[in-house]
Amino acid sequence: MAMNKQKAQDLISTYADLIDEGNYEAWPTLFMKDGRYHVTSDENHRKNYPVGIILCEDQGMMVDRIKALRLANIYEQHRYRHVMSPSVVQEADASGVTTKTSFVVYRTLSNKEAELYATGKYLDRIVFDDAGDARFASRTVVLDSQCVDTLMVIPL
Amino acid sequence: MAMNKQKAQDLISTYADLIDEGNYEAWPTLFMKDGRYHVTSDENHRKNYPVGIILCEDQGMMVDRIKALRLANIYEQHRYRHVMSPSVVQEADASGVTTKTSFVVYRTLSNKEAELYATGKYLDRIVFDDAGDARFASRTVVLDSQCVDTLMVIPL
Amino acid sequence: MAMNKQKAQDLISTYADLIDEGNYEAWPTLFMKDGRYHVTSDENHRKNYPVGIILCEDQGMMVDRIKALRLANIYEQHRYRHVMSPSVVQEADASGVTTKTSFVVYRTLSNKEAELYATGKYLDRIVFDDAGDARFASRTVVLDSQCVDTLMVIPL
Repeated sequence: MAMNKQKAQDLISTYADLIDEGNYEAWPTLFMKDGRYHVTSDENHRKNYPVGIILCEDQGMMVDRIKALRLANIYEQHRYRHVMSPSVVQEADASGVTTKTSFVVYRTLSNKEAELYATGKYLDRIVFDDAGDARFASRTVVLDSQCVDTLMVIPL
Repeated sequence: MAMNKQKAQDLISTYADLIDEGNYEAWPTLFMKDGRYHVTSDENHRKNYPVGIILCEDQGMMVDRIKALRLANIYEQHRYRHVMSPSVVQEADASGVTTKTSFVVYRTLSNKEAELYATGKYLDRIVFDDAGDARFASRTVVLDSQCVDTLMVIPL
Repeated sequence: MAMNKQKAQDLISTYADLIDEGNYEAWPTLFMKDGRYHVTSDENHRKNYPVGIILCEDQGMMVDRIKALRLANIYEQHRYRHVMSPSVVQEADASGVTTKTSFVVYRTLSNKEAELYATGKYLDRIVFDDAGDARFASRTVVLDSQCVDTLMVIPL
């Protein structure tokens, strides 16, 4: 169990690192083929509204999302920086772990200062394949604020 | 000792999670009956001024504080988000551990963007009861800034 | 290896703590005698530009830097607060570990509110001496933004 907890923490760290380094193509590979990526607001999450801000229901939708981001490329160049609290394991069984992680994301536009972009929590279900490798079965990104910048093309 | 260190880290994570989820009634239960909660500024802390911004000298005072918060309820709805560095154990003995944890708290008012609210450090004395459960014997919240928003009704 | 990883995490935490507590004289002692401290921007780092914003090529240069800071002392009093994600070990061998750590630094000027100062990542090479103590062989501070406040006298 201790090893699985460490692998989950490593996966969560790797996710943030890939995004912050601009390696967006690797992002979908952290999910299961039928993995789910969902961005919503705290208010919608509490009311159990199924649709949020972004929803990818499998890895293919994530790949498409990144292709669109690269092809369009009309947005102003910007980068993210994730800073996260240590993750908390809420459930752990033979097949995987359920975790919660508080985060803040800063955004830096070219030739500008870093600025606060979003705060919230990751609600993750992380599973392990036969080789013991960790992948997201689902990641729900719950943003504290309803006010979301429409520039949001990079995965949070 | 390694297990106690993990339990202390878990208690510190649970504290932030309860506050960020708005589960304020559970907050006093993380302290010993005679536990102490103290919010002060870095300048006052250095000068050893005994009185700070908020002082609860036992669990009952914390319960009263939350009741007042719920009854009054005249403040503008807002939520906190804690992001913390990994905690550092400064002392560890049979009865407990002394830790230091850097934190930043963001505040989100309804229909507003998240904003920086406070930065500082937690100075904690965490003890273990006969069942091995961790509780705060004391938590001192040292804020980096002297400028404190009078809206501060939610525990930091 | 697990012990070395913990020692590396502790060294990284100690670094942030010394700076945030204003104990600048202790800062050079966390490095090897021939240790290297380098602050650069993400853009310069990607282009492999050798010179960045600050460069200390041994411990003596760091000591001189702190002496100058204390002697001059003409800058407006200010303090830092580091908040960091859990560090990620990228390589580990018998002689040391290579780690990456995302950080945000807030600055508090006297009688002002805390404010966002910088975001970025630490790229560290940490080595262990015969006694098993950890020291930085090098720390490269990569800032997300090109816009750097010229007030930067305190080590990041």
